Amino acid sequence: MTDSIPGSIARVRPAVDEAIRAAVKELDSHLALIASYQMGWCEADGSPTAQSGKGIRPTLVALSGEAVGATVEQVASAAAAVELVHNFSLLHDDVMDDDLERRHRPTGWAVFGKSQAILAGSAMLTAAIGLLSDQRAVRCLLEATQRLIAGQSADLRLEVAAHPQLSECLEMEAGKTAALLACSTSIGALTGGGSPETVAALELFGHEVGMAFQLVDDVLGITGAAEVTGKSSSDIRSGKRSAPVVAALNAGGAESRALAHALARGVPEDEDEVAARTELVIAAGGVSWTVAEADRRLQAALHQLEGADIAPGPRVELRALAEYVVHRTS
Amino acid sequence: MTDSIPGSIARVRPAVDEAIRAAVKELDSHLALIASYQMGWCEADGSPTAQSGKGIRPTLVALSGEAVGATVEQVASAAAAVELVHNFSLLHDDVMDDDLERRHRPTGWAVFGKSQAILAGSAMLTAAIGLLSDQRAVRCLLEATQRLIAGQSADLRLEVAAHPQLSECLEMEAGKTAALLACSTSIGALTGGGSPETVAALELFGHEVGMAFQLVDDVLGITGAAEVTGKSSSDIRSGKRSAPVVAALNAGGAESRALAHALARGVPEDEDEVAARTELVIAAGGVSWTVAEADRRLQAALHQLEGADIAPGPRVELRALAEYVVHRTS
Repeated sequence: MTDSIPGSIARVRPAVDEAIRAAVKELDSHLALIASYQMGWCEADGSPTAQSGKGIRPTLVALSGEAVGATVEQVASAAAAVELVHNFSLLHDDVMDDDLERRHRPTGWAVFGKSQAILAGSAMLTAAIGLLSDQRAVRCLLEATQRLIAGQSADLRLEVAAHPQLSECLEMEAGKTAALLACSTSIGALTGGGSPETVAALELFGHEVGMAFQLVDDVLGITGAAEVTGKSSSDIRSGKRSAPVVAALNAGGAESRALAHALARGVPEDEDEVAARTELVIAAGGVSWTVAEADRRLQAALHQLEGADIAPGPRVELRALAEYVVHRTS
Repeated sequence: MTDSIPGSIARVRPAVDEAIRAAVKELDSHLALIASYQMGWCEADGSPTAQSGKGIRPTLVALSGEAVGATVEQVASAAAAVELVHNFSLLHDDVMDDDLERRHRPTGWAVFGKSQAILAGSAMLTAAIGLLSDQRAVRCLLEATQRLIAGQSADLRLEVAAHPQLSECLEMEAGKTAALLACSTSIGALTGGGSPETVAALELFGHEVGMAFQLVDDVLGITGAAEVTGKSSSDIRSGKRSAPVVAALNAGGAESRALAHALARGVPEDEDEVAARTELVIAAGGVSWTVAEADRRLQAALHQLEGADIAPGPRVELRALAEYVVHRTS
């Protein structure tokens, strides 16, 4: 099932983009070019284009702000800050993972070199914090950033783990993805003036949506074709210990053991081996477990949303966004 | 001439170290290990050692706080934040420059790998900002960090510049080094409760000391032996367009033209070529110009210090620190 892109994403984009563009304009001109390229606003030579990311995080910030009675404009800086942190992490992760393609284009480092990409990412992180004036919002973003960084660190260490546990994998994914989505909803509600109870409920909603988001990403990393996801490599090819792989490894049975043997040989040597390992992950039940877990997380998110004391319009839009995240195909 | 290490450095270290250690302890355990190694507190296996950096920046923060009547403890968080940002930049710069050695030890990435070093650096930057509670201090540190990042970006771009200008080089050095030293003195005075005039005077003092510091570093990068500086490579070997090189290139005359020809061939192929280029930089007057400029900056710094309305004890110690920075040999 494929849901169409929720209307809220396009509705909040102009205000958020304006805030990000203002922040990027303050950067050193070469780093601003790299940041603009990373944001999908321009080509490598600076000529304008429009190939932005989905914008799920800033939309979560904006809807969470609206959910507690604020306008999109009132929380646009916080939304921009979260999106900048997200793009800082993408830019750096692509360097670390040696990924050549993202969103159907060469990655930032592939165009501008690794050193300049690292610098531009750090500049985006620094600029993100500069967008915030509320001390609680700063703290929220800094904590999420630390969890994001720790999650990526754990992800790389898990790649060489002999016996990765599902709990380790899910904790890594909580850091890598769910932390910034939980920050998106809580910083939106916080900046929008919500009560501590509502901030907490929306934070949990964001966390569960984030887990579902990453689990769906993991499934697409196994089964999705590059022409749809816009990423050049499958998680099997790069040796990632994503949830489907770890679930398959811990499932027991012949396919599970065969997969463990294959992974012990290191990254796949050719496309046949990629295909064979992909089949083993599926046959051992890794993909079906992950799909079910993503749905369980979605239900937990929607349960939080139902219990939250928020405005009805944003509640409907937050639900639509959460469902889109789980049912997307790229 | 070699000045002995100013006593203020050892005096402020315990309070600053305590604040940094508390912040590092909050990091993911693997990233905390890398940060601790980078800070010089432990070996790669976590066993304790003591090989810290000089600690010039946190000492500038502490003395600037004392200069306006605060205690070291009152500005220790700000000092720790500045030192963390400095070490974030060292960790990342060593990755970008492929440097293998710093402070007589393998660099962070050489021990823990580039990806984990990048992550630990970002975690240190994020932790630094979390140490500050005053919004003005946050802004001061964020701005200095942006200038630091832009300076490193310019440094790397200058390496491949055909005709680097001295003004470009000095602007790059202002970002790469002087910005964080100017932030050290201004954040100390700011956090210590100094008047806007005193904050401004100490900021200018820090800026000039920072320029002198970098210019002396540049001279040591040409003439200093690795066993003294603790760095594995001379700036000639790596192709850096540091001030002595750019001054020599812009000096005119036979040696200047010979140097331009040599640099146009790319990085030196062997140690003979390193020695030959080093001789050309010296013969063209690049080193003597830089030594003189460093001293001019020191005098400008001391002039600012004389004019500032600050306590006499810290004034004497700030002067001693500035003179140490310019007269050090490593």
